[in-house]
Amino acid sequence: MGPAFPQSEYADRLARTRRRMAEAGLDLLLVSAPDNMNYLCGYDAWSFYVPQVLVVPAADEEPVWIGRGMDSVSTRITTYLSDASILSYADDYVENPAKHPMAHVAQVLKERGWDGGRIGYEGDAYFFAARWLEVLRGNLPEAEFVDAYLLVNWVRTVKSDAEIEVMRQAARIVEHTMWVAIDAVQVGRRQCDAAARISYAQIEGTPAFGGDSPANPPSILSGENSATPHAAWTDEPFLPDTATCLELSGCRRRYHAAMSRTVYLGKPPPQMLDVAKATGEGLEAALETVKPGVVCEDVDAAWKQTIARYGLEKPSRIGYSIGVNYPPNWADHTASLRPGDKTVLEPNMTFHLMLGMWMHGWGFEMSETFRVTETGAESLTRFPRQLFVKD
Amino acid sequence: MGPAFPQSEYADRLARTRRRMAEAGLDLLLVSAPDNMNYLCGYDAWSFYVPQVLVVPAADEEPVWIGRGMDSVSTRITTYLSDASILSYADDYVENPAKHPMAHVAQVLKERGWDGGRIGYEGDAYFFAARWLEVLRGNLPEAEFVDAYLLVNWVRTVKSDAEIEVMRQAARIVEHTMWVAIDAVQVGRRQCDAAARISYAQIEGTPAFGGDSPANPPSILSGENSATPHAAWTDEPFLPDTATCLELSGCRRRYHAAMSRTVYLGKPPPQMLDVAKATGEGLEAALETVKPGVVCEDVDAAWKQTIARYGLEKPSRIGYSIGVNYPPNWADHTASLRPGDKTVLEPNMTFHLMLGMWMHGWGFEMSETFRVTETGAESLTRFPRQLFVKD
Repeated sequence: MGPAFPQSEYADRLARTRRRMAEAGLDLLLVSAPDNMNYLCGYDAWSFYVPQVLVVPAADEEPVWIGRGMDSVSTRITTYLSDASILSYADDYVENPAKHPMAHVAQVLKERGWDGGRIGYEGDAYFFAARWLEVLRGNLPEAEFVDAYLLVNWVRTVKSDAEIEVMRQAARIVEHTMWVAIDAVQVGRRQCDAAARISYAQIEGTPAFGGDSPANPPSILSGENSATPHAAWTDEPFLPDTATCLELSGCRRRYHAAMSRTVYLGKPPPQMLDVAKATGEGLEAALETVKPGVVCEDVDAAWKQTIARYGLEKPSRIGYSIGVNYPPNWADHTASLRPGDKTVLEPNMTFHLMLGMWMHGWGFEMSETFRVTETGAESLTRFPRQLFVKD
Repeated sequence: MGPAFPQSEYADRLARTRRRMAEAGLDLLLVSAPDNMNYLCGYDAWSFYVPQVLVVPAADEEPVWIGRGMDSVSTRITTYLSDASILSYADDYVENPAKHPMAHVAQVLKERGWDGGRIGYEGDAYFFAARWLEVLRGNLPEAEFVDAYLLVNWVRTVKSDAEIEVMRQAARIVEHTMWVAIDAVQVGRRQCDAAARISYAQIEGTPAFGGDSPANPPSILSGENSATPHAAWTDEPFLPDTATCLELSGCRRRYHAAMSRTVYLGKPPPQMLDVAKATGEGLEAALETVKPGVVCEDVDAAWKQTIARYGLEKPSRIGYSIGVNYPPNWADHTASLRPGDKTVLEPNMTFHLMLGMWMHGWGFEMSETFRVTETGAESLTRFPRQLFVKD
């Protein structure tokens, strides 16, 4: 099968990672976030529930994958790494208080002569637990450990054209899914039955390409849950005269395009129509502000100015960089569209512009995934920007 | 809506957690694993992609939830906590290099007078990154930090009758799903289209109760991927004369019942029939060994002895404790069925007995979720134990 992109793409990613490693004075980088492992070598498997790491030396040598023995076949199938760079630990390292996979990693680093110098690690990544660092430090006293969290994430924040192409496919999937979702939200139907239809559409994808399992499950916020952004769906039926917020994604080769819309079952109250109108105008204002050279907080400022005319405000950020990822989240964890974020927009950055208005007891959501172009913004997701009313 | 179980259940869980805290000499426990947060207070939201914690004092006081502001509504909806015990940090703490949510947590601990003594943390949990500990240590110099990983996981390893009841519902869901899956695997159909049907069945659940989004996505290992246990499905069609391994779950109120079966499209080779027969006998031998007082490694020994008669071996563990969880994994991370694990079986422990035979270039899987009873084992999942052959 091999990795998702041509070898030249991975060589470029590695070169840009090494430039940042040089700036940070790192001799070695331990990459444990599954999204970053995928980005640098193509590795794709649901194995990140056990410790695994891609070791990237500063010198021009092939990175080394170290993971659980049974997963090394996935490394052979999904990466460009040669067999000599695919190492693994025995199965009794798994969930065993008496031994830790990071002790095995330390041993490998010693054998390769990589146990001195400055070693970077992803200190705030989901999959680099506190104990990993303690075990590494205890086993490699000669090394200086440096928190290099987000080093690779920043490399991947500007996408290649090939990545954009995959995200366009993800966008086609989420557009298809959103139509299915809007149809699925019906008075009397259980929320879980709508979720089932939505998940089907996400994974079925299109006749030309299927979907992966997204990093976030479908978000279906109905009734009292429409006031809280991360609630799970329930068995309860959709009720008349309620709003349902849908935050969905398409996932293709682990790249995401996300989109949100809101459905009202009945005649929406004037207050909701006002919020929908303000949000739609704010969305347009934000997108019109986007172009290379603009900083992230300017996009937020345009949004804020627009909705303030309606007497509205939103205390949370309105968007974030999006791309390749695994659960629990599809964000790149780098740039955010909010006050204080001075990240300068560049062509082929991609954002999920997420306008979630969580009011007292109800909510309204509208969002798009956009790409920064040479001159402005291009919405990768194309879908009517409106409140969907089903009487 | 409220939490999934009656208040008495949570009081009991908290009391048992506090007994273990006393044994470990802890004054306070910081619970960050979303599964353990759910277990102790009912909290259920897809918000664990940002830092959050349930603070459990040793004294008989209500635990305190600290998380992102926008998620505090979910805390009100899904837990028994009073408003005074639901605290939150401002949105600009999210993914902001200039400030860290754990600094806010430290501040709260100071205000409550909880900043001294021995503070336990979940040092190898998925969601307790290395930096969290560094920020906490830096902000709370008076405290002694103690790695209390798995403290709560061990409390939850023996299930209550109410939890078993929920796991039975999950078992009904996975049985329904497996029938759908076996039907869905057809020569020429894309793997993603089978995955879509499987996901639909998992979430639709039964007419009486719907399914949650499981902690692991459907595992559909076909063709070359049947030799590697954690590969993702692809767009490729199922091919004639190939095996497809299906490792699926039902998820109900975030509790899992898992089950695996294998489908062969065509006439299976004798070698596969041998492995299927050996695995089936090994499964029966393992289950017959289970009863209170037996230790985990004895179950594995019975399995090993049986398959050795067929000249087979399996280098990886054959099962693990299973229950409430979130991605990336449905295991309790406590007891494993493997050599060296001396955990004594007790009534209402639950295991996923996972017999994955990953051979060179192909694989065979069969598994059940079972409960330890007063006298033996009860398989929660009920499904024909065979290789499914579709000519």
